[in-house]
Amino acid sequence: MSTFPSPASQTEQDLTRAELLARYRQVRGASEALCAPLQTEDYVIQAMACASPAKWHLAHVSWFFETFLLEPFVAGHRPFHPQFRHLFNSYYEQVGSMHPRPNRGLLARPTVDEVYRYRAWVDERMARLLDGAGAADWPEIERRLLIGLNHEQQHQELLLTDLQYNFSVNPLKPAYRDDLSEPPRATVSPLEWVEFGGGMSELGHAGSGFAFDNEQPRHRVYLQPFQLASRLVSCGEYLEFMQDGGYRRPELWLSDGWAKLRQEGWQAPLYWELREGEWWRFSLGGMRSVDAAQPVCHVSYYEADAYARWAGRRLPTEAEWERAAQGLALQGNLREAGLLQPRCAPVGRGLQQMYGDVWEWTCSPYTAYPGFCSAPGALGEYNGKFMCNQMVLRGGSCVTPADHLRASYRNFFYPEERWQFKGFRLAADA
Amino acid sequence: MSTFPSPASQTEQDLTRAELLARYRQVRGASEALCAPLQTEDYVIQAMACASPAKWHLAHVSWFFETFLLEPFVAGHRPFHPQFRHLFNSYYEQVGSMHPRPNRGLLARPTVDEVYRYRAWVDERMARLLDGAGAADWPEIERRLLIGLNHEQQHQELLLTDLQYNFSVNPLKPAYRDDLSEPPRATVSPLEWVEFGGGMSELGHAGSGFAFDNEQPRHRVYLQPFQLASRLVSCGEYLEFMQDGGYRRPELWLSDGWAKLRQEGWQAPLYWELREGEWWRFSLGGMRSVDAAQPVCHVSYYEADAYARWAGRRLPTEAEWERAAQGLALQGNLREAGLLQPRCAPVGRGLQQMYGDVWEWTCSPYTAYPGFCSAPGALGEYNGKFMCNQMVLRGGSCVTPADHLRASYRNFFYPEERWQFKGFRLAADA
Amino acid sequence: MSTFPSPASQTEQDLTRAELLARYRQVRGASEALCAPLQTEDYVIQAMACASPAKWHLAHVSWFFETFLLEPFVAGHRPFHPQFRHLFNSYYEQVGSMHPRPNRGLLARPTVDEVYRYRAWVDERMARLLDGAGAADWPEIERRLLIGLNHEQQHQELLLTDLQYNFSVNPLKPAYRDDLSEPPRATVSPLEWVEFGGGMSELGHAGSGFAFDNEQPRHRVYLQPFQLASRLVSCGEYLEFMQDGGYRRPELWLSDGWAKLRQEGWQAPLYWELREGEWWRFSLGGMRSVDAAQPVCHVSYYEADAYARWAGRRLPTEAEWERAAQGLALQGNLREAGLLQPRCAPVGRGLQQMYGDVWEWTCSPYTAYPGFCSAPGALGEYNGKFMCNQMVLRGGSCVTPADHLRASYRNFFYPEERWQFKGFRLAADA
Amino acid sequence: MSTFPSPASQTEQDLTRAELLARYRQVRGASEALCAPLQTEDYVIQAMACASPAKWHLAHVSWFFETFLLEPFVAGHRPFHPQFRHLFNSYYEQVGSMHPRPNRGLLARPTVDEVYRYRAWVDERMARLLDGAGAADWPEIERRLLIGLNHEQQHQELLLTDLQYNFSVNPLKPAYRDDLSEPPRATVSPLEWVEFGGGMSELGHAGSGFAFDNEQPRHRVYLQPFQLASRLVSCGEYLEFMQDGGYRRPELWLSDGWAKLRQEGWQAPLYWELREGEWWRFSLGGMRSVDAAQPVCHVSYYEADAYARWAGRRLPTEAEWERAAQGLALQGNLREAGLLQPRCAPVGRGLQQMYGDVWEWTCSPYTAYPGFCSAPGALGEYNGKFMCNQMVLRGGSCVTPADHLRASYRNFFYPEERWQFKGFRLAADA
Repeated sequence: MSTFPSPASQTEQDLTRAELLARYRQVRGASEALCAPLQTEDYVIQAMACASPAKWHLAHVSWFFETFLLEPFVAGHRPFHPQFRHLFNSYYEQVGSMHPRPNRGLLARPTVDEVYRYRAWVDERMARLLDGAGAADWPEIERRLLIGLNHEQQHQELLLTDLQYNFSVNPLKPAYRDDLSEPPRATVSPLEWVEFGGGMSELGHAGSGFAFDNEQPRHRVYLQPFQLASRLVSCGEYLEFMQDGGYRRPELWLSDGWAKLRQEGWQAPLYWELREGEWWRFSLGGMRSVDAAQPVCHVSYYEADAYARWAGRRLPTEAEWERAAQGLALQGNLREAGLLQPRCAPVGRGLQQMYGDVWEWTCSPYTAYPGFCSAPGALGEYNGKFMCNQMVLRGGSCVTPADHLRASYRNFFYPEERWQFKGFRLAADA
Repeated sequence: MSTFPSPASQTEQDLTRAELLARYRQVRGASEALCAPLQTEDYVIQAMACASPAKWHLAHVSWFFETFLLEPFVAGHRPFHPQFRHLFNSYYEQVGSMHPRPNRGLLARPTVDEVYRYRAWVDERMARLLDGAGAADWPEIERRLLIGLNHEQQHQELLLTDLQYNFSVNPLKPAYRDDLSEPPRATVSPLEWVEFGGGMSELGHAGSGFAFDNEQPRHRVYLQPFQLASRLVSCGEYLEFMQDGGYRRPELWLSDGWAKLRQEGWQAPLYWELREGEWWRFSLGGMRSVDAAQPVCHVSYYEADAYARWAGRRLPTEAEWERAAQGLALQGNLREAGLLQPRCAPVGRGLQQMYGDVWEWTCSPYTAYPGFCSAPGALGEYNGKFMCNQMVLRGGSCVTPADHLRASYRNFFYPEERWQFKGFRLAADA
Repeated sequence: MSTFPSPASQTEQDLTRAELLARYRQVRGASEALCAPLQTEDYVIQAMACASPAKWHLAHVSWFFETFLLEPFVAGHRPFHPQFRHLFNSYYEQVGSMHPRPNRGLLARPTVDEVYRYRAWVDERMARLLDGAGAADWPEIERRLLIGLNHEQQHQELLLTDLQYNFSVNPLKPAYRDDLSEPPRATVSPLEWVEFGGGMSELGHAGSGFAFDNEQPRHRVYLQPFQLASRLVSCGEYLEFMQDGGYRRPELWLSDGWAKLRQEGWQAPLYWELREGEWWRFSLGGMRSVDAAQPVCHVSYYEADAYARWAGRRLPTEAEWERAAQGLALQGNLREAGLLQPRCAPVGRGLQQMYGDVWEWTCSPYTAYPGFCSAPGALGEYNGKFMCNQMVLRGGSCVTPADHLRASYRNFFYPEERWQFKGFRLAADA
Repeated sequence: MSTFPSPASQTEQDLTRAELLARYRQVRGASEALCAPLQTEDYVIQAMACASPAKWHLAHVSWFFETFLLEPFVAGHRPFHPQFRHLFNSYYEQVGSMHPRPNRGLLARPTVDEVYRYRAWVDERMARLLDGAGAADWPEIERRLLIGLNHEQQHQELLLTDLQYNFSVNPLKPAYRDDLSEPPRATVSPLEWVEFGGGMSELGHAGSGFAFDNEQPRHRVYLQPFQLASRLVSCGEYLEFMQDGGYRRPELWLSDGWAKLRQEGWQAPLYWELREGEWWRFSLGGMRSVDAAQPVCHVSYYEADAYARWAGRRLPTEAEWERAAQGLALQGNLREAGLLQPRCAPVGRGLQQMYGDVWEWTCSPYTAYPGFCSAPGALGEYNGKFMCNQMVLRGGSCVTPADHLRASYRNFFYPEERWQFKGFRLAADA
């Protein structure tokens, strides 16, 4: 088979086949472990077009391996089910037709059991492929495998954010996990400003590890001097904005943001409810009272931008964020911490909370880096075709696995979307 | 407790309490028996606002007994769940708020198991109430009980029609029952015309059996002489209409019907699909080829009306239909026949298929009979508030239980709705 | 040319050609006289799909004469403009394509001047046709001419109602006529009940005068005894309903009506505005304070029905209304009175305000009379294809010309529509 | 009056008051001259929310002078009409309420004559203000005046683009001017590539002339080496893209673009129609056949981007465009040329058509320059609040006045919008 350029140009070259298979099993197992608390019914529903059913996520990530690895690399491959190619295609136009996204929650079948059988079927064949593939195919297989694993990790995060949304519309307010512990209450540290000089900087991924195509090529940019806030904006600070009329003052908002606010009747972050004078928020652990010390979460770009304008500051560009992150240890309140919600910034000097807690909105629209080139074929649709109308977020969240992140990692969402774990950090000109 | 006038003015006065409890158990059991073929996932989905999840039907009919019988008549009644009053209220404004109808399929919880526990809880308390209620309360309890049982039977029919719709949007086309037998192929008898003289007639329910308020009072009407077709319009006849450009000729259609046809792209009855030149239809038994001898089913009023205009005939009024039905035996292809789909008209003289197979569209808008008076209170919302914009259908269908029907029974739907088992019979002036 | 059955079966047989031409000129002149107060800009706008521009009305009624008389009966007829057939076709599918109704207000051209030239061009040719047509064609010409004249009178009423609506959305609240006099303030007489016995009655048009096809055939109906209110419901009475929570109590409303009320935020009749505690209404004379003695106007069927339920009464059927109207003089506050708004009921015994002031909602859905048969061809689309989803109104309004009305005249609108001059009279079982 | 920082930081400091008044009169007169070909009806209509009526443009630009100059700087100012503040406010939330944009075409009043009287009234008072204002107020008055004049020039362009759109929906296809000459047919020169080295560059306005706030501050950026096409993409080249399935191949499109294409049924640029195998386009001069040598016009960003991907190139960034434009003479097919449509690129070496013909889509989202700061107050809403979801266009068009443009001028529109005169030029990495 001829080489198929993949959107990820780098591979973890020192992993053996056995190590890769172990990593495959670890990632696949993690998806299923995340579903352990679910009832069968919880897998089925879809409360908005963006929030896919858990069942769909589990099947789609398997479809990815079947479509991009088993089908091209296993001689005589016959599909698990002839219609799964259509049912579980997300948006790959070059693969063929797809079930409409808003209708994923209308599928009673395949059942949850059948989806798990599909997963096992794929896993068995993937293990055989990783073991037996010829040397000529191997580089391409390895490249695609790494994409597939990172893809599944992205869907693990989506699985949790979508479950939270899908539970949230139910008046019973069911918790994903009743046993989820609440982070200890703390007092948030005073916000400090960390200064960065201007000049030439480098942006984007370089090196031998895995990265998506949209993080590349690494390139030079010129930065003005800037400052970053030492920590994320807290719920307490955000409440001040709300109490100062933040949601009623059009002069603080982008025009499209104000229109959205009025259309949707926004008065607070998503999942917040005022009950007898006190603010509560819906979480994966059910309804919790808002903790002023925690980072504000589930806000749109418009809200982050309006807060920054109200505060006399601005949001950072993605180049500023990445420059600041370079050299920092990749640690924080990530999925492995098991909290599955943001927590108060730790006490300490310098930048805190750069990784984990919430994805940080930047003021950078998601566009191609200079010299960016989408891979040919369907995998080229992974990132490139979304480079319009979305904003970049950085740093991962409390539901992102640590080994999925990098300083150069670019997440992107439409500015009005709020259901992800999104917050923000202030920036300013130096 | 003071008397509460019910929308059903008549009761089955010769039933003992024990007989009523037996009937209660029979009806309640039938609902659950209809669900026996379902997987858990099948209970959850709702593919359009009108097609409620099976789980919702099972809970709502129980809510009906809890709300209208347990709550007012059981001293110290405490609800099964404080939010079920809201979640499973369908449209009774006077009972309080209700979960929005289009969002019934977004509720993963309560689970199917919990809904069955709710049913058992209601059944246990209902049995106690029927056994122990005082004589003063009894007439009102009996009246409401009969409404509740007929209500549950209506939802049994809806359960099947909604399941068919909810399965139909799935590209896998799952069958409700794989073992559903196909009616034997037959040749449809020639259509004959049965004549009825004009003059005074009586319309509406009278007598001692149960009837809904909207069938009353019985009243006099003056009819012109008329003719009714001896049987329902068949698929074969309907195919002739289609082949003669029926769906492309605006002169055959009501203005609102033509607008709907163009908006929805109608080219055939609901559930029909053209596969390699042959018409198939989706049924509770999965995809079946269209049988020319079977009555056409799943057509809107607009389609029935257009066909009649094309055929140079008209649809019957409900008064004509009821006059013709008076004295006929209540028999036909009803739910008890177990086919769950229409079948070819039997050979015989006179009117065939008046009961069962498909609900028959009449050209009568659903309005109040002279002297009609809605009951006060929430049960008065059962029928009266829908007396606008809907058309009357008569005769029951292959998914209607026989003991639910009468000659005076009035079903009603919006003229564009097609997902029920609806067909039609031609009429003409004599 | 072969005979073309027209929807109007009767003609004014004793009119000479000269008299018919005079009537043609009178009707055509009346349309233009109604436009005398307009500025050029006023002819152009369309504030909702139903409220066509004045310019469009003037052209469409001329198109009617060109299409149904000049084109078939004038040898060698060449159209005024090749695209007017499309532009000014309202809904005659059999004539061909039509400009979409909601887009009539997007046409700057033809200009108002061009439309008047089109009218003059049609008038000149119509005069020649009426003078010179051969005897063989004459019966059909006469029949169509009478339809055309009645059609233009209907559009005269629409012209005024649409102008009122189109002006109403302008914050400047421009008056159609600044010089429109206000009816003298009066005290409304106490409402009395007029009784009618039951039994056989006749409904529909008979005799030699003009009538539309939908008023025919005259046929027998059986009526229960009933009562009619002596006059229309007044604004003062309607205000009591409003003050008693009429717009906040779902138990008073039809289900579809309550849904519409909530969707549209209805709190009062159309055109009513609360200004500093006092109710005002927009009229053809601009903003006027609500006069308690005047009949309530610009209400939907849903509002009329809810009021009647609140009052413990009901609306009359069209058969009841027509029976009551038989034998009454056709007089009242009609267009010729020049008020162009309803006025307080006159003092007197018996039924008042049966004709004029406001069209009276009946509780009768608009359906075909027994034996009704649409004419073949495009003119058959005039009335028959609307016989679904609409309600019958009777009696004409303050903007209806007197010589356009009859006791058997059936107007029809969707139950949610309010922009016509519509009110109602109560009825009750005797 | 205290100083009011304006969004334009620079003024034409060497203009005398008399020269400024002359410029005011010239700009104001140009608006009216552009309306000379119109009929009264043409001023009124609005065929989509974005395409305001000509009447509204004429009034709004006058409202701008009244609101931002007469009201604050003329002692005892009384408004021309108390409701014009609301009616002709476009989007300045801080000025107060505004008539909804989609409803501008529903206003018959004020009439066209009244709008012209309003203009004269404003002009008279503006002349007095410019003549008599005190020295203390003058700097602020001058600054605002220049914004007002540039604002009116922007609306002159919008007036023409909106007229073209509003005429285009009329089946009569009326021309704005019947006498508009067609550019001479020519053969387009071969496309050449002009190379630019990388390195530091400066972006944004500097110097003494007028510029909008969004062009500032001038700042340093680092560019990779790049190439620009010597001329705009022609209709002939675009037709090749179409014939190669450009509108049917999702792999060429951004995801949002493909969704829009399918939703709207795009098959060609806006205004193009296929008539008997030949492509025509609607223009200000009516229907014209497509000239292969002319630049393609009325395309969305999505179409420009898809073409570039098909061609194996990309669109330029705004920094690249501006660097290439620095030092070029500001000349081209601008409004003064009187063609009011694009024309074939002139023969010559180096970059052609940088100014005029069509606004050129860049691949740069419209964002704030580093250090950008919106002015306080309502004039700060002019540009800053739109810095999201839009793309930058550069270079002006055939309907832009020459004295309105600069190399640093940033125009911006949503990527799906097509009704402006928009085309594009290819770029590539060097």
